[in-house]
Amino acid sequence: MTDGFLHPDRLFPADPATRAIARELYETVKDLPIVSPHGHTEPSWFADDTPFEDAASLLVIPDHYLFRMLQSVGVSLDALGVPRLDGMPVAKGRDIWRTLAAHYHLFHGTPSSLWVDHAMSAVLGCDEPLTPDNADRLYDHINAQLKKPEFRPRALLESFGIETIATTDGALDTLEHHQKLAADGWIGKVRSTYRPDSVTDPDAPGFRDNLIRLGEITGCDVTKWEGMIDAHRKRRAFFRDYGATATDHGVPSAFTADLPPHEKQALLDRALKGPLSAQDAELFRGQMMTEMAGLSVEDGMVMQIHAGSRRNTNARLFAERGPNMGADIPGRTDWVGGLTPLLNRYGNTPGLRIILFTLDESTYARELAPMAGHWECLMIGPPWWFHDSPNGIRRYLDQVVETAGFANLAGFNDDTRALLSIPARHDVWRREVCRFLAQLVAEHRISKPHAQTAARNLCYDNAKKAYKL
Amino acid sequence: MTDGFLHPDRLFPADPATRAIARELYETVKDLPIVSPHGHTEPSWFADDTPFEDAASLLVIPDHYLFRMLQSVGVSLDALGVPRLDGMPVAKGRDIWRTLAAHYHLFHGTPSSLWVDHAMSAVLGCDEPLTPDNADRLYDHINAQLKKPEFRPRALLESFGIETIATTDGALDTLEHHQKLAADGWIGKVRSTYRPDSVTDPDAPGFRDNLIRLGEITGCDVTKWEGMIDAHRKRRAFFRDYGATATDHGVPSAFTADLPPHEKQALLDRALKGPLSAQDAELFRGQMMTEMAGLSVEDGMVMQIHAGSRRNTNARLFAERGPNMGADIPGRTDWVGGLTPLLNRYGNTPGLRIILFTLDESTYARELAPMAGHWECLMIGPPWWFHDSPNGIRRYLDQVVETAGFANLAGFNDDTRALLSIPARHDVWRREVCRFLAQLVAEHRISKPHAQTAARNLCYDNAKKAYKL
Amino acid sequence: MTDGFLHPDRLFPADPATRAIARELYETVKDLPIVSPHGHTEPSWFADDTPFEDAASLLVIPDHYLFRMLQSVGVSLDALGVPRLDGMPVAKGRDIWRTLAAHYHLFHGTPSSLWVDHAMSAVLGCDEPLTPDNADRLYDHINAQLKKPEFRPRALLESFGIETIATTDGALDTLEHHQKLAADGWIGKVRSTYRPDSVTDPDAPGFRDNLIRLGEITGCDVTKWEGMIDAHRKRRAFFRDYGATATDHGVPSAFTADLPPHEKQALLDRALKGPLSAQDAELFRGQMMTEMAGLSVEDGMVMQIHAGSRRNTNARLFAERGPNMGADIPGRTDWVGGLTPLLNRYGNTPGLRIILFTLDESTYARELAPMAGHWECLMIGPPWWFHDSPNGIRRYLDQVVETAGFANLAGFNDDTRALLSIPARHDVWRREVCRFLAQLVAEHRISKPHAQTAARNLCYDNAKKAYKL
Repeated sequence: MTDGFLHPDRLFPADPATRAIARELYETVKDLPIVSPHGHTEPSWFADDTPFEDAASLLVIPDHYLFRMLQSVGVSLDALGVPRLDGMPVAKGRDIWRTLAAHYHLFHGTPSSLWVDHAMSAVLGCDEPLTPDNADRLYDHINAQLKKPEFRPRALLESFGIETIATTDGALDTLEHHQKLAADGWIGKVRSTYRPDSVTDPDAPGFRDNLIRLGEITGCDVTKWEGMIDAHRKRRAFFRDYGATATDHGVPSAFTADLPPHEKQALLDRALKGPLSAQDAELFRGQMMTEMAGLSVEDGMVMQIHAGSRRNTNARLFAERGPNMGADIPGRTDWVGGLTPLLNRYGNTPGLRIILFTLDESTYARELAPMAGHWECLMIGPPWWFHDSPNGIRRYLDQVVETAGFANLAGFNDDTRALLSIPARHDVWRREVCRFLAQLVAEHRISKPHAQTAARNLCYDNAKKAYKL
Repeated sequence: MTDGFLHPDRLFPADPATRAIARELYETVKDLPIVSPHGHTEPSWFADDTPFEDAASLLVIPDHYLFRMLQSVGVSLDALGVPRLDGMPVAKGRDIWRTLAAHYHLFHGTPSSLWVDHAMSAVLGCDEPLTPDNADRLYDHINAQLKKPEFRPRALLESFGIETIATTDGALDTLEHHQKLAADGWIGKVRSTYRPDSVTDPDAPGFRDNLIRLGEITGCDVTKWEGMIDAHRKRRAFFRDYGATATDHGVPSAFTADLPPHEKQALLDRALKGPLSAQDAELFRGQMMTEMAGLSVEDGMVMQIHAGSRRNTNARLFAERGPNMGADIPGRTDWVGGLTPLLNRYGNTPGLRIILFTLDESTYARELAPMAGHWECLMIGPPWWFHDSPNGIRRYLDQVVETAGFANLAGFNDDTRALLSIPARHDVWRREVCRFLAQLVAEHRISKPHAQTAARNLCYDNAKKAYKL
Repeated sequence: MTDGFLHPDRLFPADPATRAIARELYETVKDLPIVSPHGHTEPSWFADDTPFEDAASLLVIPDHYLFRMLQSVGVSLDALGVPRLDGMPVAKGRDIWRTLAAHYHLFHGTPSSLWVDHAMSAVLGCDEPLTPDNADRLYDHINAQLKKPEFRPRALLESFGIETIATTDGALDTLEHHQKLAADGWIGKVRSTYRPDSVTDPDAPGFRDNLIRLGEITGCDVTKWEGMIDAHRKRRAFFRDYGATATDHGVPSAFTADLPPHEKQALLDRALKGPLSAQDAELFRGQMMTEMAGLSVEDGMVMQIHAGSRRNTNARLFAERGPNMGADIPGRTDWVGGLTPLLNRYGNTPGLRIILFTLDESTYARELAPMAGHWECLMIGPPWWFHDSPNGIRRYLDQVVETAGFANLAGFNDDTRALLSIPARHDVWRREVCRFLAQLVAEHRISKPHAQTAARNLCYDNAKKAYKL
């Protein structure tokens, strides 16, 4: 992949000697295969391999980083084509693209401009960054590209050098697309991930119905706690048939619980009966986290915990357009207090692996690094969401490496639903890792050969090892 | 304004190539007019335009950054001329100045030395930094300067290049000085800001009397919730007559509430009757924040929220000398949880603008930047108080820009009662902005023309836009 | 002390001009005597002056930084020689050393590699860093060294240039080793520190028995609050006879209390009767902090508060091997709210000195620096534990200096039980201080002579002054 209109030294430190080291390290990792063990691409893309429709529906409509920022300066989501729940019409295609172009300067200094510029330049072969003046020309150029065979989803996985990519699928999902991928011999290249939030979080929409459906699918008696756990056991096995090596859990806090059996059953009884109190809902989620760790001990699946987002804080927007609209805002997270029940139940069991993702950077040095530097089961996931950015990665490496070491870091996840941004995101990570290591070398804190090993581990090996790939 | 004894490259990065870019950017912003939309200068200075008394009463006595630090190493506030509530005598003039000079080394590495050096050098024409040896000579020099016409308050506004400056005035204030300024055609250059804490915070001294006085001034029945709100409506209109475009609210936390009408009235009844419980006081403050947002929707005034200072933590000092004595210490602030009631009431209303100021830097990347990058009504104020410093500005830009972008930042406020430090504070901000942008340019993250636009926006245009000036 | 195989410019900034300034500053402080006013070396080492046994028992078994990281990747503590409470055999000597060597790459990028490399190179004269291939040879080399007179404990104190070193001893300790040191004229070079946690923290193992023992030792009636305080008064005097100038308090939070006398007595009554509630235990600890401050006002001993570690979070490990096993994880700390009762009781009393140590870096700029920059009694301790590292020191200086100034910092503590790491830890601090100051000089924020003064203060004078040495 060429750099196109991007500068080849982007993100490297300004000091010439350190930049030279960063560049040298980067040469050794830039072409490593991409391991993408956590993300939100659509499995149907890879199963059906149909061409993408146009630049707007591929690059703008699904990218909440873009439309949230545009909304924050007064651009309506209608004008950006973001669907409404009431079905009223929203903008389409070229109009969306022009709106993006008119405001593209808003993204200066943000990672979105790095990702979009990279996708347009290195992937789509545009010859200059987006401006109001070239918007129409580039729109036509991109749409023409998307009609070519080399821009169909499976071809993109190949040209991106993706060794493996995981989708994230609900516990009740039929995995029909993964079944098609299996039939085509594509499982391994594409994998599923087990994400049971809809049946482990009593605040999830339709929770009770979901739970009943879980029982129907598995033939388990989900009105009994152990039956419910057994239903998960079966679903996890089903997901493993489609390449899943990991589960994923999105929780508002890091709270976990370890209740005695009769309290678990009483909690489930209350959950099935009617709406739970906020406290009971937290207790249910927390107990389910511990149960999931227990199942991971059994079946070896890697447990991912994404904690600390306060979802849908804009009630009107949620009513108008549903979730994932840019109004999910991080809060403080207490990892030590939260995970103690789970860890004291299962944390010392060999083979368990839990990867922690935080949105509260104050926990990097205070909690996550000391915990990962002690518990064999814990690894720290890469900077997540708003913190997956050049400065975010710098703060992360600054704060975790000294106490957790390199070996307790899970490498990189792109965590994206924006397929074309995947190479850009991994490239930013690789450049930042090399930048960090170059500074250590320049300050005579590690040797250059050791830095090369660390770079390779952080950009490739650690992710495979962390996810048991 | 010349640099005097200050180094022209101060605060710029050491790397030669990056420094050159920073210097080039700085050349384009250093002479922009100063927009000072929030601060604590005395309106009487500009109304009466009488010469300042002497160096000590101008530069030391009102500067809590200076006297807190001196107190922390055992210098008594008496020796620094800080008035006592019991009226006992305190030091004056030259003695205060000599005490400052004897301990001026304490400020090495702190922003106070940047501000005082700048005021003495660039503004007052001193030929070297303050030392015990030159204290008397510089004291005489400064006092001689202060007698000249060009050092009278209005002349200083001109020579500082101040386009507009806002004072901060209580809801019950007669604005007599602003009336004089209006008569002289100076409203616009000087403006008021509506700060109603004395009647919105039940913990304010004399709260009930203040509330009754508010009713008297406005002719509104403040024993009824709607009457009380109407009283604010009238006062805000009055303040707007004297150039106010903004309100300001100093609150211990970011808590807001959105109660039904009868609960509001019951709360007011309890507040008028006697001392409120701590919980009720917080509820009253929180509801008033939402009411103020509602009035801002009506009248277009920009709402400033300064949250998170724990005031007067040193009880003996407070009893001895009153508030603002250097014992206000920040605490943790929960912006997401706190503002949710207010935002879900008014946050989606077009035209509303709220500027958030925090003392809890852990909220920059975790809460403020994601919130400002979503809600159209929200902007992030500049680093406040202890964080208005070179490293404080670096941490701020590091943590907010990638997620909020440049457009959601409110530019700079000097927020000072130290008139002579205003050029210094804006200059530090401008240098740090150029430094930050120079690094982005040196790392090929934005182009130099884009950096120039961003520099101008952050140093001038954003502040005017944010405050609707 | 030579650098051996270490690079002489390690940790200095990469920018050549800034590096040159850092190097110049470092030359002026690198050979200053070491003042070590807080740490955990064994007094018996210095009393008995017997040679150390071998490399493993000196360098690995007592170093929880090393064995926690090894455990985090699956190395058993048995293999590292960490004793078990059940007395079952664990690895010894050369086997432990080989295990360390096999995994020594884990420490790349962590401060442990800086400390161990320094101890091996500059102290023990090894000719290259540890690898699996040279493990046996270096093990034999070190053991041969340890047999030489110049590697006995007292000789090491001399060759390290240690002017004074404090041990940390429990309130019930007989100080037998210090008595021997006194007889040998070594008090002053070695000192005790009064650490009464076992009788001030109701959650300490054997708390009630400890309290009774305290009464027996002192002849005080510890069933009466004032008697208990008097017992402390006597023990503190006893410790002062052995050079103690300070007390030390390890507390889970910064909570303090200031109860009226009858509530104190009632609390003590409950404490003596049986297990206290968690709330009462916190209240007891908090009241004892205030009492200790009161005694410091009386006797002039410097009070150290180490707050915010959640101890023994891994229950199974604690049951297996006891405390200090790497499972102590920091949590959030509220310094302002916590210390207010103590400070409003004693905070304005001249002569009181309290040094604060935090594990919650978000409090550096938000709480500790503003507090230390106001209260005469407060100083900020150096970065503690996980934060005693190059990047940890950088974050500390970045966040405290601008608001607290240099004068409110207590210099450096090594806080270590790893004797051979003491020169390394002080050297890292000195290099980082010079690096920080060099950047200020390069950015024209302070002059070079002022930086030299600040360097000397931070590396030597401040520690002596802070601890009244």
